[in-house]
Amino acid sequence: MGSTQVEELGEIETPILLTNTLAVPEAARAIIEWTLSQPGNEETVSVNPLVAETNDSYLNDIRRRALTPAQILQAIQSATTGPVTEGSVGAGTGTTAFGWKGGIGTSSRQLPEPSGGFTVGVLVQTNFGGVLQIAGLLAGQKLGKYYLKDVLHPSVPENPNGSCILVAATDAPLSDRNLRRLAWRLLSGMARTGASFSNGSGDYGIAFSTNISIRRTPERRGSTATYPDLANNLVSPLFQAAIEAAEEAICNALFAAETMQGFQGHFAEALPIQALFGDQPGNSN
Amino acid sequence: MGSTQVEELGEIETPILLTNTLAVPEAARAIIEWTLSQPGNEETVSVNPLVAETNDSYLNDIRRRALTPAQILQAIQSATTGPVTEGSVGAGTGTTAFGWKGGIGTSSRQLPEPSGGFTVGVLVQTNFGGVLQIAGLLAGQKLGKYYLKDVLHPSVPENPNGSCILVAATDAPLSDRNLRRLAWRLLSGMARTGASFSNGSGDYGIAFSTNISIRRTPERRGSTATYPDLANNLVSPLFQAAIEAAEEAICNALFAAETMQGFQGHFAEALPIQALFGDQPGNSN
Amino acid sequence: MGSTQVEELGEIETPILLTNTLAVPEAARAIIEWTLSQPGNEETVSVNPLVAETNDSYLNDIRRRALTPAQILQAIQSATTGPVTEGSVGAGTGTTAFGWKGGIGTSSRQLPEPSGGFTVGVLVQTNFGGVLQIAGLLAGQKLGKYYLKDVLHPSVPENPNGSCILVAATDAPLSDRNLRRLAWRLLSGMARTGASFSNGSGDYGIAFSTNISIRRTPERRGSTATYPDLANNLVSPLFQAAIEAAEEAICNALFAAETMQGFQGHFAEALPIQALFGDQPGNSN
Amino acid sequence: MGSTQVEELGEIETPILLTNTLAVPEAARAIIEWTLSQPGNEETVSVNPLVAETNDSYLNDIRRRALTPAQILQAIQSATTGPVTEGSVGAGTGTTAFGWKGGIGTSSRQLPEPSGGFTVGVLVQTNFGGVLQIAGLLAGQKLGKYYLKDVLHPSVPENPNGSCILVAATDAPLSDRNLRRLAWRLLSGMARTGASFSNGSGDYGIAFSTNISIRRTPERRGSTATYPDLANNLVSPLFQAAIEAAEEAICNALFAAETMQGFQGHFAEALPIQALFGDQPGNSN
Repeated sequence: MGSTQVEELGEIETPILLTNTLAVPEAARAIIEWTLSQPGNEETVSVNPLVAETNDSYLNDIRRRALTPAQILQAIQSATTGPVTEGSVGAGTGTTAFGWKGGIGTSSRQLPEPSGGFTVGVLVQTNFGGVLQIAGLLAGQKLGKYYLKDVLHPSVPENPNGSCILVAATDAPLSDRNLRRLAWRLLSGMARTGASFSNGSGDYGIAFSTNISIRRTPERRGSTATYPDLANNLVSPLFQAAIEAAEEAICNALFAAETMQGFQGHFAEALPIQALFGDQPGNSN
Repeated sequence: MGSTQVEELGEIETPILLTNTLAVPEAARAIIEWTLSQPGNEETVSVNPLVAETNDSYLNDIRRRALTPAQILQAIQSATTGPVTEGSVGAGTGTTAFGWKGGIGTSSRQLPEPSGGFTVGVLVQTNFGGVLQIAGLLAGQKLGKYYLKDVLHPSVPENPNGSCILVAATDAPLSDRNLRRLAWRLLSGMARTGASFSNGSGDYGIAFSTNISIRRTPERRGSTATYPDLANNLVSPLFQAAIEAAEEAICNALFAAETMQGFQGHFAEALPIQALFGDQPGNSN
Repeated sequence: MGSTQVEELGEIETPILLTNTLAVPEAARAIIEWTLSQPGNEETVSVNPLVAETNDSYLNDIRRRALTPAQILQAIQSATTGPVTEGSVGAGTGTTAFGWKGGIGTSSRQLPEPSGGFTVGVLVQTNFGGVLQIAGLLAGQKLGKYYLKDVLHPSVPENPNGSCILVAATDAPLSDRNLRRLAWRLLSGMARTGASFSNGSGDYGIAFSTNISIRRTPERRGSTATYPDLANNLVSPLFQAAIEAAEEAICNALFAAETMQGFQGHFAEALPIQALFGDQPGNSN
Repeated sequence: MGSTQVEELGEIETPILLTNTLAVPEAARAIIEWTLSQPGNEETVSVNPLVAETNDSYLNDIRRRALTPAQILQAIQSATTGPVTEGSVGAGTGTTAFGWKGGIGTSSRQLPEPSGGFTVGVLVQTNFGGVLQIAGLLAGQKLGKYYLKDVLHPSVPENPNGSCILVAATDAPLSDRNLRRLAWRLLSGMARTGASFSNGSGDYGIAFSTNISIRRTPERRGSTATYPDLANNLVSPLFQAAIEAAEEAICNALFAAETMQGFQGHFAEALPIQALFGDQPGNSN
């Protein structure tokens, strides 16, 4: 919800919320309330909430529509800087990925100084199918959690459907066009983990820049402002960093998620890290 | 809201609602409730509400967010076939167009038998600026409601911003690709009325087919079903019909809308039909 | 040809050529030769030629493929600044529009100082069908050159198919995103002339800025350069100007084109200006 | 070249040619000549050639423009069914990938009967950078051909730029929309090989169906024809197959390519299979 305006105007005007499929209206309502109540927005009459969702109905009684706008508003208000909690939290509470428990994951890369020294951070909400691959390790195959079973034996009930939301932030001064291109690269990081991109997957990547020099302040929005722009010829390292951070963020979501029993007794096991790596925990960077 | 999935899957799974910008969450919530409660949807866990909006804050105290999901649900439930009320009703209650009172408008065309005999109907929610042109009559210019004033004298307070939503229905068996192409043509019907397509205009056209033979029934959704498809080479008359119906629907919205005083005493006059056409009312078809 | 790279990188790296459908390879070859031979391009190994075309086979023996790369190269080399010849010249030699002789047309608008004082110029290659409308005058209807005949009586041989190419240049410092948006508006100027946007129409709008401050010089392409950017909030007058200039350029193409007899004796009459306007020539601005 | 019409009309009307960047005009000319000369096309006046290219200027003296339309025409005429030659042939002759010699590669998958029994075949032209990964084996890292060097030490001359063209054919009766979605999945197969998707990469995936029942014959193009359509709900196994086949086709291109010395003595080594796999040749399926 809200993506078409972002593409048209090249700007994001609200917090980005991730939630479950049927809670999008509540999330949008919370965003509108929060935005209208911000100092300086006393006259604001248009808000384009940006909400992404995945369907967590395997573990979550999604039809109950438990989340309220007030709870979501509180989530916005209590957001802080600093490390992000990963695993079965927030919009990742009820998600599954590659047949295991999914969740929220993050990762980042910092470019060396000669490449600009910029940072790219990625946060993902993992809720999709495929055959897990961790930095080359064929985890899905090794553990027998093998989507190809579905292909070969379609009667198998495991559902590879589902989506992933990938959000990237960078301090590089990127144009909206290059942010869009970087967002696309997030999906290729997802591909590296073995995602199946099945019919029901509605995967979205979005990217924004935190660089203060390209922020669209009220003054700049009413003038011919001057913006720095990292040239096309210099974006490749950032693209590479985004791909790697997306790939790692997805793995981190699985590393952090814990076994959960949910709606109607449905069960999602945590990725058996021990079985995969023995004593040496997964170290993908 | 919801447009990206429609493009991806080529299908619409809910009613289409038009409302004001800040009521989108309430409309989405009503759609979800209505859809989940339909017979046969007892197990449905994913709904992609399709909601379009325009910003009617000139006449409407939009920040008050007066519309409730219950009211919107009732609007869905009380929808009927037959003639559609035009003018200042529903999502068109608070809209303005070309500097006059806008609203909801409809029009349709039926192709002659040799072209297939298909019907195209268009419904619009008009809330945008420009210099009105009615089937060639330079109405905006004649009545001095002249957007170019804004261009030439940007201090003039009139705001040409705003959007139009155009919905087309046809009984022709069109593929989703040709429905998308037909939807694009709706915007060119809008262009003919003198629309300014300003920066703030978020104009959306959407089209669907009512032809039962291409409906994606549960059976067809699980098989290799057979669908009729009107060939590319035969769609031109339908495209022409859609352009004309969109143009006329916009004019009809203005013909039907009545003078309104709204929020903070703001005033939107009805199009002065008498002054434009004298004793002969606008008859554009 | 070449449009996808322009969208991806936000830049145009060659002259833009307009020609007929089957001469695109020759035009592309001429562009490559010209580009490779420019001083400073001695090491250039990649060129993305930008070529647009329309099908002029009604008047032109298009299958003969008469145009040579050498002739097209000469056209590039002899391009000059100053007024552009309109009518049945260049890529417009064999085109038809609205049932009359089409051709090349141009028009421009200059914004008043308070709106930035920018200029938008548009050049069009007109080769499409519809019912001509000239600044509101229902010319097609008045002269009985009525596309609806085709719709109502599809046995009528007149073919409304065909395309229009619209190229806009502006000195405003627009981002590539806003250039894309402006290019889209050119099509709505085309819509105002009564274009039918039939199935076979492959209409393309393209826009570029001549503003030296946003030119991607070799230095800027290797750094984080600083560019001025006309804010979203200020582009509406430019959009309006582009719509009007596109509309007028199409009319000018018809005003300038002269009756022509071509391939297999096919005949395209010039727009009968006298019959339309009497003693007062068309004055659409 | 030609992609926009394919998206608009949902059909491919010529052979698809792959070549180098500066030979696109010659390829397009050959396609036009071939198409016009086909029986039944005596009156054809419009052809939309579909040509994809990569920049092979490291090994190829691309500015010499050695390929002639006659040679390319001969390539079209001598095309046969049956196994496709892989490695340094055709458009793959001068390409490099992941720092090694690239080329043409193919692979296919056949779905089991319960999933429809359809086949997907993929052909790739590999000419891009990244850190090679072969079915999980971190080949690039193991062999020290490590793109990250570029990121970490941008003075390193290796250029990760470049593109990949991926063409898929399937006998499944897919709509043009699902063919477009399948084509997108090819890029995710490419991602799995470790592609860097750098700034200069212009990667294109295209897919078509060979199923005779959805072929747009002249008869069907003039009527409301009936087409079978594999439902959205059934395309996931095909998508999975396309991802895997694309991944494997890229690996096969490298397995088959042989060391080559080219323009100005530039050198591209074949992938050292022995060093990678020892006595057991790469067996990725």
